[in-house]
Amino acid sequence: MINVTIWNEYIWEQQDELVNKIYPNGIHNCIKEFLEKDKELNIATVTMEEKDHGLTEAKLSETNVLIWWGHRAHNEVEDKIVDRVQRRVLEGMGLLILHSAHESKIFSRLIGTNGSIASYRETGEKERIWVCNPAHPIANGLNTYFEIEKEEMYSEPFQIPLPDETVFISWFEGGEVFRSGLCYRRGNGKIFYFRPGHQTFPVYYNSEVQKVISNSVHWANSEINSDSWKDNKIEISFIGILQVLPAVLVLHD
Amino acid sequence: MINVTIWNEYIWEQQDELVNKIYPNGIHNCIKEFLEKDKELNIATVTMEEKDHGLTEAKLSETNVLIWWGHRAHNEVEDKIVDRVQRRVLEGMGLLILHSAHESKIFSRLIGTNGSIASYRETGEKERIWVCNPAHPIANGLNTYFEIEKEEMYSEPFQIPLPDETVFISWFEGGEVFRSGLCYRRGNGKIFYFRPGHQTFPVYYNSEVQKVISNSVHWANSEINSDSWKDNKIEISFIGILQVLPAVLVLHD
Amino acid sequence: MINVTIWNEYIWEQQDELVNKIYPNGIHNCIKEFLEKDKELNIATVTMEEKDHGLTEAKLSETNVLIWWGHRAHNEVEDKIVDRVQRRVLEGMGLLILHSAHESKIFSRLIGTNGSIASYRETGEKERIWVCNPAHPIANGLNTYFEIEKEEMYSEPFQIPLPDETVFISWFEGGEVFRSGLCYRRGNGKIFYFRPGHQTFPVYYNSEVQKVISNSVHWANSEINSDSWKDNKIEISFIGILQVLPAVLVLHD
Amino acid sequence: MINVTIWNEYIWEQQDELVNKIYPNGIHNCIKEFLEKDKELNIATVTMEEKDHGLTEAKLSETNVLIWWGHRAHNEVEDKIVDRVQRRVLEGMGLLILHSAHESKIFSRLIGTNGSIASYRETGEKERIWVCNPAHPIANGLNTYFEIEKEEMYSEPFQIPLPDETVFISWFEGGEVFRSGLCYRRGNGKIFYFRPGHQTFPVYYNSEVQKVISNSVHWANSEINSDSWKDNKIEISFIGILQVLPAVLVLHD
Repeated sequence: MINVTIWNEYIWEQQDELVNKIYPNGIHNCIKEFLEKDKELNIATVTMEEKDHGLTEAKLSETNVLIWWGHRAHNEVEDKIVDRVQRRVLEGMGLLILHSAHESKIFSRLIGTNGSIASYRETGEKERIWVCNPAHPIANGLNTYFEIEKEEMYSEPFQIPLPDETVFISWFEGGEVFRSGLCYRRGNGKIFYFRPGHQTFPVYYNSEVQKVISNSVHWANSEINSDSWKDNKIEISFIGILQVLPAVLVLHD
Repeated sequence: MINVTIWNEYIWEQQDELVNKIYPNGIHNCIKEFLEKDKELNIATVTMEEKDHGLTEAKLSETNVLIWWGHRAHNEVEDKIVDRVQRRVLEGMGLLILHSAHESKIFSRLIGTNGSIASYRETGEKERIWVCNPAHPIANGLNTYFEIEKEEMYSEPFQIPLPDETVFISWFEGGEVFRSGLCYRRGNGKIFYFRPGHQTFPVYYNSEVQKVISNSVHWANSEINSDSWKDNKIEISFIGILQVLPAVLVLHD
Repeated sequence: MINVTIWNEYIWEQQDELVNKIYPNGIHNCIKEFLEKDKELNIATVTMEEKDHGLTEAKLSETNVLIWWGHRAHNEVEDKIVDRVQRRVLEGMGLLILHSAHESKIFSRLIGTNGSIASYRETGEKERIWVCNPAHPIANGLNTYFEIEKEEMYSEPFQIPLPDETVFISWFEGGEVFRSGLCYRRGNGKIFYFRPGHQTFPVYYNSEVQKVISNSVHWANSEINSDSWKDNKIEISFIGILQVLPAVLVLHD
Repeated sequence: MINVTIWNEYIWEQQDELVNKIYPNGIHNCIKEFLEKDKELNIATVTMEEKDHGLTEAKLSETNVLIWWGHRAHNEVEDKIVDRVQRRVLEGMGLLILHSAHESKIFSRLIGTNGSIASYRETGEKERIWVCNPAHPIANGLNTYFEIEKEEMYSEPFQIPLPDETVFISWFEGGEVFRSGLCYRRGNGKIFYFRPGHQTFPVYYNSEVQKVISNSVHWANSEINSDSWKDNKIEISFIGILQVLPAVLVLHD
């Protein structure tokens, strides 16, 4: 079983009528619903308003893959929780960063840049998402491209470091492109950024978007889920001339 | 001075009336003409029909940056010339791979895949080229994007290994995207793939295309231009217990 | 089941008394023997002297992971077989490149450089192999480092392009270092270079070397094992102004 | 002229007799002294005890390359100053991270991991630093390796993300290896991590160490030194069906 935790700031759905109509139980519950068809997943949801934003040490330590949706309140996420999530990623927890979370504290923390984009446009235009690497597990079951009829546009330049892999690039009706599916590794943890998912369009009901999220949960799940950098026992046997020196080896923690 | 050699298979211009009208002196001479405004460049042109395709040992050994345009006759390029060009790239010669040369023997040789694309379409549609990294020297002087009014379309997936940098991504009017500006290093040499340049459209007269080619010549030029892997003198001083062993160190060549 | 094919040039073992004593049935059979403990593997061996060096279309098309050991006769491997192996890697076959095969035609073909090393020394010194990424599946079950008591030394600089991952770095008693475990992806295929394995030392009897080879067979095996770049059906729906143009889309093969 | 600012926490030199003997004016002034031979550099020094740790907005905005030495007091560096330095790196300021600053807040911030190492040993053993890429500008003028007679040892695994380039790997007398010269780009800025420089050994008097630091200042200096992601003017011309929609394009800041 893979323990999946879906985090949502859960603001728009409670304040904006249009968003509430599309996602009456919140985006987190919409994602939970389609993921539940996968019997290998054990899924929980948490929201920002909970204590520790729902991300207690206990909750995180049992989470294998964390899904993150945030937009309006990036700055209200407490730094100590960002620290905690980062630590778990380094230990091996997978992390899916969705849509506007390209500017979340946790994504920025892990990539080292601010994840800024050049522009956006919320007219509900067509997005066509191209697969750059059809052999990638995250693209499994997709055609060469898939489409979202109505989406918000994001435009390059996207301020990110060199990704480990570029899985998707989006084409927008209005004339822009965007790197929409990007893999990073940090410590033991795998991170996947996936662009689609604006709150005013029913993007998470799209079957191909669902397939990508499901694939990436499996991809991001790691068998190694503890700090391997720490856990490895180091028993140094000194070599050569150093064998006669007083050994002053210090294990870092 | 940077010695630039422009290589062109030079077939379409001599056989196709339309192409001949656009590039009466060949694509190589069109590129030469606009590069000549740059007084730091010393420019020669060669074509496939010459002995050794114009790429003799002498010519290559004095070339700092080689520009490659080929389309119809990739397979007619002799393997021994491909070997020779590869060797010079490893020594530090820069290489610009233009347009359809994504399937040339030399590009494939250097990247290790076949550089295939999913599809192409020659209807003269609009291409909008987005800058992914505005800080890159090759993007110097460009806006966030530039446009080519009429171009051939290339579509992802583009079968390439992870590039060292992604500088440009193209948007096409018909609905496709393509990674259009890609950097690779091999040995001492720098390689830049730049997509635009179909023979039936006057792409090389576009001032921004010219700017990119000019920028990339400077970027690909390297001060280190010899086989540094070989030139470094190795004087091993054995250490520890090995000091008493008979030294059997062999320098590889 | 994973179909593994072990390729060996199989020359030293037949010509050199010392090597024959260590590997009486050839290095390929030594590797086969320890891999056979893994019941998920279905293992075959082939050698250079066979027709097509044992790498017929039929044999390769059923191989999931190919292991390659060569040293003395790199240049005697026919180019058409190198082409064939490369094509299968692009389709998704995994490839393990062992020891001196850093200079094999097939490795050079896939990485684009010549894979040269600065020097080597065959005195049977101690090699200590450090794990750079303890979270990597190939390092599974290893400590922070492991040792080979007697090995041939290889020295940096190692002329390779930026690897996708650096799993191991070797320390040698005589004072050198070498990147000993490197991952590359090309097309659908995964490639792992693993340094140890000189024919005059019993390296393939070392249990940690065996563990690494076993781990990397599993890592290199891919569920996607056909040319996904080709297999994806492309059904372009033209968009915008192009909808009224005569469609001239050509699928590349 | 390149404006270089050398930052030192400047604690050991004032508190430890041995360190004070080696670096009576502080490590920052030792580095300043040898860099001053280079007439293209305009060099300033600042220390942690100054207001804003010496890194005021004014000072940073005029700095082209910042050199960072810290060890004992990483956690005393104020977060707002780390934010400020990161912002300047994204704008294009170069950054050299020396020795124990692998665990500084600013390095961790930019790479996204904690930069931990497996172990260290302070016995003053020999370090031999191998050049992995002799064509790299930072290795300019070096032989295949150089040595430091007495240094502190650092050991792999080094918890870092995939570097853009690996320039150096260290061999230690006691049996360890370490990736000692690593390049990263973040936004417009270039970052170089260089391992040597323990305060109890006279490492910064070593002429090859000095050469590397000098080379890397030039490498890290960038002509683009402002937020190119922001500065690019975006003038979107809508295309196709979107031409009739009310344009709701928002430029991100």
